[in-house]
Amino acid sequence: MDTITVYPDPEAKILKKAVSEWTGLPMNTIIAGNGAIEIIYLLMKHHNPREALIPAPTFNEYEISVQIAGGNVKDLLLSEEKEFVLEIEPILENWHNSDVIFICNPNNPTGTLTPRETIVEIVKQAYKAGKVVVVDEAFIDFVKERQDYSVADLVTKFPNLFVLYSLTKFFAIPGLRLGLGFGNPEIISKLNEIRDPWNVNCFAQLAGIHSIGDKQYINKTVNYISEQKDYLYRRLKSIKGLKPFYPSANYIFINTEKTGFTSAEITESLGREGVLVRDCSSYKNLRPVFIRTAVKKHDDNNRLLDTLIRLGGKQV
Amino acid sequence: MDTITVYPDPEAKILKKAVSEWTGLPMNTIIAGNGAIEIIYLLMKHHNPREALIPAPTFNEYEISVQIAGGNVKDLLLSEEKEFVLEIEPILENWHNSDVIFICNPNNPTGTLTPRETIVEIVKQAYKAGKVVVVDEAFIDFVKERQDYSVADLVTKFPNLFVLYSLTKFFAIPGLRLGLGFGNPEIISKLNEIRDPWNVNCFAQLAGIHSIGDKQYINKTVNYISEQKDYLYRRLKSIKGLKPFYPSANYIFINTEKTGFTSAEITESLGREGVLVRDCSSYKNLRPVFIRTAVKKHDDNNRLLDTLIRLGGKQV
Repeated sequence: MDTITVYPDPEAKILKKAVSEWTGLPMNTIIAGNGAIEIIYLLMKHHNPREALIPAPTFNEYEISVQIAGGNVKDLLLSEEKEFVLEIEPILENWHNSDVIFICNPNNPTGTLTPRETIVEIVKQAYKAGKVVVVDEAFIDFVKERQDYSVADLVTKFPNLFVLYSLTKFFAIPGLRLGLGFGNPEIISKLNEIRDPWNVNCFAQLAGIHSIGDKQYINKTVNYISEQKDYLYRRLKSIKGLKPFYPSANYIFINTEKTGFTSAEITESLGREGVLVRDCSSYKNLRPVFIRTAVKKHDDNNRLLDTLIRLGGKQV
Repeated sequence: MDTITVYPDPEAKILKKAVSEWTGLPMNTIIAGNGAIEIIYLLMKHHNPREALIPAPTFNEYEISVQIAGGNVKDLLLSEEKEFVLEIEPILENWHNSDVIFICNPNNPTGTLTPRETIVEIVKQAYKAGKVVVVDEAFIDFVKERQDYSVADLVTKFPNLFVLYSLTKFFAIPGLRLGLGFGNPEIISKLNEIRDPWNVNCFAQLAGIHSIGDKQYINKTVNYISEQKDYLYRRLKSIKGLKPFYPSANYIFINTEKTGFTSAEITESLGREGVLVRDCSSYKNLRPVFIRTAVKKHDDNNRLLDTLIRLGGKQV
């Protein structure tokens, strides 16, 4: 509470030191933001891209950040038949006019993971072509084999790689606002020049330092969410008409088409019972038959399952 | 604490409602920011000024925000002989190429106040000339006769007037980050489009709501600071060589020239005794003989005075 009455450290030094020790990255490759979203906006403001290649569906703030920066968006349409997996070929075929490529890993809302080697290959090709790759690892802490997917450690190797990271998901502090960005020292220094000087509030800095240090919470959470997502996935699969995608983080993407109801209808029915899921029909390139649900505590997950069954979902 | 685990309200509705009731301004003329500084940066990003006319000395973030937005800065040199008072004529003579004019009221670091009628006249002339006037009232809550100086209520009348307001000074929550902007509904809506969606953290929103409602704190603080600033001003004036400017907010601007020491020397000497004052030599248009000191609690103010006397300041 004492820190309220003084300005937050504009350099977030203690936080960045903790992040540096945790990630092994030098402090001058780290920037802290008022949520990862501030860093996305700053990054686009700095790059001022003519065009950005953005997979669809994905987190919609990438598109907004590009538009605010005055750039165009080219959609990289992920194929529903291929379960929305991100492949290299379509990227190379579509990025001709793009300065920036966004990759969300695991992807929101589909939960699809892109292997580290795939991203490395994309970054290498992008480097030759003079393009920047922005990888958003906001949900990567939930991934048990994160070392097979995360590329954060590679920002010291590839100057055209920028990695976004959020502490608000895994550490459950979205109200506090805290995001991180990892990039080469030159881009980090440019972003520091154009950001607000006191962008990260005192509590977010403190919470970040303590969260990163709490190895017990980290292990417990990864294991618990991992168990619960497998449980919820298995049970959802047993409900007739629902086709859940195998989850990688703390949410499950579900095709509801075979229930005969649209995602909006299911979202509304559940909402009337006090169970909130995300109707994904507002995402680009998705037919109105997809919902996303959070993986929560065991009892909450059961409540979702019970409500789905009570509303007519037959178990098979 | 419960609000940490959910995203903050992107519209800050309850906070804006409280501000609306407090100020009498419609909700669509109010924007909340991650400190007033975020709003300054957004405003310049939106206006994208070719040139801004900025008084000197004043708070240096106006200049930085204009430069980041790619605009030029024209200094409006305030005259030391006239005690840095802001006058209309020099503004009219210097604003020819400027799209935006900044006024800090009371001014930081001088404490100079600009009467409401003067600002209204500037805003009217600026309206005819197609220019925007940005008035920063970050410290206005400390001013006892604030109704003679504040122009926040006039944003509904003059579409070219924008008023910045900070809750971090008067309510002593700089660590939390909370600023407000008042402007016409069109500009507010534009700024909302380009800001981060979750820019104001949960605690800042809650603290804002409760601070504004705490009339007892407000009255007590205005009266206490008013008493203490008068006391500190009177005592400082009695120390040989110091020329304090009559304070309007919670800080006092002091010319140290007649002590024979520079502001840097005095700041360093006091610092070695654990008393922190601001050496103002980094401000534009100030000779290196000005310091700014905070008006604090009675005992802290006495400690500053005692230390100045102990270091050789003779009382007259």
